[in-house]
Order: sequence, then structure tokens, then C-alpha cells
Amino acid sequence: MSQEIINKLREDAGEIFMAGLRAVDPIYAVKRVLKLENSTLEINGRMYDLNLYDRILVLGAGKAGASMSRAVEEVMGDIITFGHVNIKYGHFDKVNKIALHEASHPTPDSAGLHGAKIIYDTLRNTNEKDLIIFLLSGGGSALLPLPAGEISLTEKQQATSLLLSCGATIQEINTIRKHISLLKGGQLAEAAYPATIVTLIISDVIGDPLDAIASGPTVPDPTTFKECISVLKKYDILDKIPKSVIEHINKGVNGFIRETPKSDEKVFDKVQNVIIASNMEAFKASKEKTVELGYNTLILSTMIEGETRDVAKVHTAIAKEILKSGNPVKRPACILSGGETTVTINGNGLGGRNQEFVLASAIEISGLDNVVVFSGATDGTDGPTDSAGAVADGFTVKKAIGLNMDPLEYLMNNDSYHFFINMGDLITTGPTNTNVMDVRIIIVV
Amino acid sequence: MSQEIINKLREDAGEIFMAGLRAVDPIYAVKRVLKLENSTLEINGRMYDLNLYDRILVLGAGKAGASMSRAVEEVMGDIITFGHVNIKYGHFDKVNKIALHEASHPTPDSAGLHGAKIIYDTLRNTNEKDLIIFLLSGGGSALLPLPAGEISLTEKQQATSLLLSCGATIQEINTIRKHISLLKGGQLAEAAYPATIVTLIISDVIGDPLDAIASGPTVPDPTTFKECISVLKKYDILDKIPKSVIEHINKGVNGFIRETPKSDEKVFDKVQNVIIASNMEAFKASKEKTVELGYNTLILSTMIEGETRDVAKVHTAIAKEILKSGNPVKRPACILSGGETTVTINGNGLGGRNQEFVLASAIEISGLDNVVVFSGATDGTDGPTDSAGAVADGFTVKKAIGLNMDPLEYLMNNDSYHFFINMGDLITTGPTNTNVMDVRIIIVV
Repeated sequence: MSQEIINKLREDAGEIFMAGLRAVDPIYAVKRVLKLENSTLEINGRMYDLNLYDRILVLGAGKAGASMSRAVEEVMGDIITFGHVNIKYGHFDKVNKIALHEASHPTPDSAGLHGAKIIYDTLRNTNEKDLIIFLLSGGGSALLPLPAGEISLTEKQQATSLLLSCGATIQEINTIRKHISLLKGGQLAEAAYPATIVTLIISDVIGDPLDAIASGPTVPDPTTFKECISVLKKYDILDKIPKSVIEHINKGVNGFIRETPKSDEKVFDKVQNVIIASNMEAFKASKEKTVELGYNTLILSTMIEGETRDVAKVHTAIAKEILKSGNPVKRPACILSGGETTVTINGNGLGGRNQEFVLASAIEISGLDNVVVFSGATDGTDGPTDSAGAVADGFTVKKAIGLNMDPLEYLMNNDSYHFFINMGDLITTGPTNTNVMDVRIIIVV
Repeated sequence: MSQEIINKLREDAGEIFMAGLRAVDPIYAVKRVLKLENSTLEINGRMYDLNLYDRILVLGAGKAGASMSRAVEEVMGDIITFGHVNIKYGHFDKVNKIALHEASHPTPDSAGLHGAKIIYDTLRNTNEKDLIIFLLSGGGSALLPLPAGEISLTEKQQATSLLLSCGATIQEINTIRKHISLLKGGQLAEAAYPATIVTLIISDVIGDPLDAIASGPTVPDPTTFKECISVLKKYDILDKIPKSVIEHINKGVNGFIRETPKSDEKVFDKVQNVIIASNMEAFKASKEKTVELGYNTLILSTMIEGETRDVAKVHTAIAKEILKSGNPVKRPACILSGGETTVTINGNGLGGRNQEFVLASAIEISGLDNVVVFSGATDGTDGPTDSAGAVADGFTVKKAIGLNMDPLEYLMNNDSYHFFINMGDLITTGPTNTNVMDVRIIIVV
């Protein structure tokens, strides 16, 4: 196959990726679900008669908060009463009415705490004549820190660090975090009741579980104070966790403070949670583009996890099967695969999970003249690099050897960034202000 | 979902597996491609007029050799002139005309060498009036050991061990093995020329590459003596490899002995290589069964490799996506996946790659009430156990915890065998006399 055709396939992969990215751009995603016509606000098909509300408040937290705010203002600027959204330092956008409140991520700081208090106080002073548009995106948990009871922000962080280091699962950690916070685990909805809340969500969690994205502030919490004690006992850290945390949990167990709200409680009667951007939303748009380009497309899964180089082996095994037997899809074929893999670092190179995926795949497809592998992070930042990902084909290994680079050596050293920068095969998008995990694209013709 | 329905799904998985096994049973597989009518032998659609041949010889090597021999006798017993097939110690079957010659596997021994010499001498004394049916299956390389030149069997094995320990790839090892043997890499076809050869092959190699299965005795060899030197230099073992090996390779480089035969040589004019059983042959039959049972079925790949527990994560991510969005295939869905994964042993338990796959999957699908995961080795022997594999569902973890077993602990200890024996979820078939790697079955309803 000529270099010209391979270049066309690489271009196709790039276009397919960009089509996905556009669909999960916060501005585009907000405007897709939020429509204002006369005095009716339509949100994802549900109608809100604005004559029933005295005030429209825009609140929120997350790394995409600035862009989401701008989009909301562009749709309904005039009718917003006021707004306050916690964002990450430096992630500004053009807004007029909504106050963007900068704070620290991933480690919360006092600025975040201050912003969270403003939001909490605002919510506590709403009534049934208020409509709240709540903007939630990745980082929304760290950017909305409000410890419960006598717990300080530092003690809350100590508890989280301790849980992380003892091997607790993310579910177990979230069980505790929801019970030592004032806004997580449905408590934001509780604070706002009986106001109406619509939460617009950009999902950066595998499987889009509403109760896990930014710790589900407007979603019923299935976990309990009792379960918190079980977790602390399981990892034998009852006497290591800060005293204020234990005391708070014990108060909950003994009924002195309220449980987080459960699914049958009325506080959720006036809540609408809408995922406006997710890995699947990106895939829907990417798939449309692939069809336009003439591919037979299979969405493998948006929930892929696991060690990157082994995940790559499964993907390239599918590519080889397509070549050999036309299973699981006939050529010209495109496989879309999402989620977020992990990299166990054994070397001292520079790279990210997407670049490492493409490097490991390049080794597996070496010599096949009709396969292109592309992988990119939708936030534009793959690991600690300034690149979103990389692209490779069946000639990549040969070309690398010609440049005196041993691909396997780069892989073993977790140095995919330097491999692809030398090859000229890095994908660079700049920050996209969104994050719906990764998009992997395998093209086989 | 009721236990009754789950039990039905588990039964379905078992039936789907057994349908695949039956299709790759050596007896069935030989009879499917080998048809005798009057004086015409039809092999996979090609006709052989038996009036043109004075003798019909059945030769071969491999672990399925006994069953394959029996099947050939059942089809054309009377017309076989004589036969000799090297098999593994103890792997007998009922035959009359064909001599079954027992030898050692995986480490070759003098019995294997003796049998290989008989085959070589037989081939050297054939002519164009001879038709040779050659029966090849897994283990055929170790069971057909015939070092070239002055090289002893021990020296040949030393060379292989050295290459293995220095990290050479299987392709590199085969390059050398083919050049220090008398029958590998197309040389068996060369020895038989101008007789007609039909090689019936059971493939236990990922992707069914003809030149790799049992070192491709009747297949052109793309590698050269020169490449052997490159490999030895690359791993810096020129002075560690036995002298006889180096001397033989140098003779080849300098043209004193013939290169292995290449694809344009006439020795292959009268050769037909037929894969009679492979991972895909099993899948075709398994898929038929799934359709009969009402499933929408996707053959993912017959070439899956990688670390077992990460491969499991990709498979369960697909199962979860099927539940969530109906991608890549709608419910009731069945995913078939083949190849052979690896297990990095960190614990001191007992298990095999199939059992570990199912255990790792069980943890991932815990709580999902409509998923069943099944994985089995087609040779009936998963790792060093007496089981072919295991089966699990979304209740497996809960049931295990009820039995005071921690699934994650068993996984970390690579102790899937004891986990599943306690659960009563092992799959036992006994030895199947065939090997086309593994069959994984994921059912989602």
C-alpha cells in the first residue's frame, strides 16, 4: 500500500477524533441540550415554564465550569439572576453574569472551600420559586470541598490520603467522602429543596455512574454511615483516621445527624440530572464521521480499563482478525474504543497512556500495510505531556529502526513521548476544556 | 434474575464450548476434509486420482497424531500402503496399519530422533508415484527432531535454551531452529520431492501462520542462514552457542550447504497444506450453536494475547457496554474470543490462564445479574491442572464471600483452581486429543 493511502487513513483517524472532540466541547454540549424559546426552557426534552420561577441561578464546579458557564450565558444570559461557579486556577472564559471563582485542583484549597460555602449558603436560601442550573464536570469534587461537622479541610484530606494508601477501592473512598462532606452524595439537592435543580454533567468516569461523577451532589447516595465504619475496620485504620472524622461518622451511625439522602426521598423529586457529554457522546459523533468516510464501524466499549500494553494487544488482535477473517467487522473497518487505561511505570521516560497504547500497538501491527492506530485524550493532555496522544501505522516500526530507534526499548522505558516526537507522530490539540476520557481509533482497510 | 435463568445461561455457555470442541476433534476434523469415493481422494475440495499413485504413505508428528491416524485409517484404511507417525508418550488410539511411534514432548528424546530418521529415510525414498498424507499437530516440532550436519540433539537443545534465556523472540528462535534441522522450514517437502504431499494441520499457533505451526515442515521458509548470524550477534551469543551449530550456520552462509527452500522453488509445486482444525474452526461451530440458541454473536478475535487479568478487563468492559448501550452487539449477546493469554505468576496457588481469566472477570462483573463468563482450553488441560477452565456469573463473588473466600485474594495468589473447585465451577472435559488454543465465551442477556 502506498504512503499516500496510509496518509489518507491517518488523516481519517484525525478527523474521526476531532469529530468526537467537537461533540463533547462544553459550549457545543450545553447548547445541544439547553434551548430557550419565549418563556420556556427546554432541557434535554423536558420543559420548564419560566413564568413559574422568580429567580434563575447558575451554580457549579468543575474544570469545564468556565466554558459551560459561557455557553449557558450565550443561551439565556438575560434571564439569569446570578451565578457562581468554582473553576480551576487559570481556566477562564468570557462571562458577564456568572462569577467564576478560581480554586485549586486536584488538591482542594481554602479558595475552593470559600467558593463551596458561597454555593451552600446560596442553596440554603432558595425556595420553590427558584430554578438552579448546576454545572458539573471533572474535578467537581475537589473544587467543591465542604467538610461536614467539626472536620477541617486538612483532616478530610488526611482521611482520603490514608484510604488511598491502604488500598481502599474508589467506591470505598467515596462512601466515606460522601459522609464527611456537606454537598456530596445528594446533599446539594437536599440543601436546595424545594427549589428545582437541573444538573448538566460532563462525565469523566467510566460507565458514567451519576453517583460517582464529582461524588454525585444531586444524586441519591446508596451508601451509609454504617458502611463507613465497615471500611475503616476492613483496612484497620479506625485509630489512624483523624478523630473529628470518626466522631462525625459515629454521630451518623447513632442517628444524631442525618444520613445522606436516599433514592426514595422527596428531595430528588425536583432534580433532573443530564449527562451532556461523555465518552459515548464523543463516539456517536465519531461514528457518524466514520460512516461519512465509508467505514464499517464497531463501538467496542466506552469502559476499557487495564494495563495499557495488554489492552493494546487485545485491540491489535482484533485488527489482525479483521484482516484475516472479516470478524468482528468487515473492511474497511473502524473500531472505536474508550475509557481510560493505566500505565505501570517501570522506566524513566516521558509519556501518557494514549501514547503508550499507540507505541505498544505499533509493535504489534509492524509490517501490516493496512492498519492505522490512533489514541487521544479528550482533554488534550495525555499524562504529564503537552500532547493529546499519537498515531502509528504498520510502517512505524520500520521507519523508527531507520532512525536508529528501538521501539521496544522506548516502550520498556515508558518513553512513548520521545518516540513519537522523533517520528513526528504526536497529536496536539491544546487544552480542550473538556474531559470524557480517551478515544482510541483502529482503522483496518 | 432468577438462579434458574442464570443456570440456563451457564448451560448455554457449556453447549457453545462443546460445539466448538466437537468441530476440532481430530477424528471429525480429518473426516470433514478427507473424502474417498471410488478411486478419487478429495481433500478440502482438491481431487487426487489414486490411479496415478503406486503407494499411499501416512506420516506425521504431533500430539493429535494418534487420533488423526485413526481417522485417516477409518476413511482410507485399505488403500494405505504403510504409515509412521510420531506421537507423545501415552497418547495412543486404535490403529491397524499406521505405526504409532512414541516419543518425548516438550523436550525431544532419542525415541523422537529415531522416529524422525525413519520418516526422513522414508521420504528420501519416495518418487512421483507416491502420495504422502502428512499429519501435523501441536508438538510436531519437538516430536520430529532431526538436527542437521554434525549437530547433536543435545547441542540443538542447548542452542534453543540459550536463545530462550537471552530474550530472543519466537520468530528469531524459529529462524535458527529451521536452519539447524533437516525437516523443518520446508525441508520435509524438499526431501519428499517429487512425491505429492498433503499436510493436514491442526493449528495451535495464534493466527495460524503455516510456517510457524510445528516449524512448517512443508511450507516455504522466508528466513536465511545470514539472518541466523544476525540473531546470534544481536544477542551477543556467537561464542556461547555450541560450536557445531555455528559451524553449520557458517557453512550455510558460505554456500557449502543449501538454504532452506523458498516459496518460488519447485519442491512446493506438489504440496497442499490444509488447516483442518483451528481456533476459527471451533468458533464457526460455536457460533452456529449460539445462533441456534438465539444469541446475537460477535467473534471478537482468535488472536488474543496479553496478561490474562488485563485481557479479562477488556472483555468485561465489552460486556458492560452491551448492557449499557447495546454496543458492539445487542442483547441477548454472545462474544467469542480465542487465542492464548499469559499469566505472570506472583502467587503460589494453582491455576491456568482460562481459570484466571474467569476469576478476574467474575470480580469485574460482580453484581451484574445477566452476565456469564466461560473460558476453556480446547486441549482439556488449563495450565498444570486437570481442568479445562471455569465458568462464573454476576453472583459468583457474592457466593464466594458467603463461603468465606475473598476472590481478589485468590486472584492475587494465582489460585483460580482452588477458588473454582470450592465454587463447583470448574469445567472438566478430560484430554481432548486436540489443541486449538482457548475459547472464551461471554454471554450478556
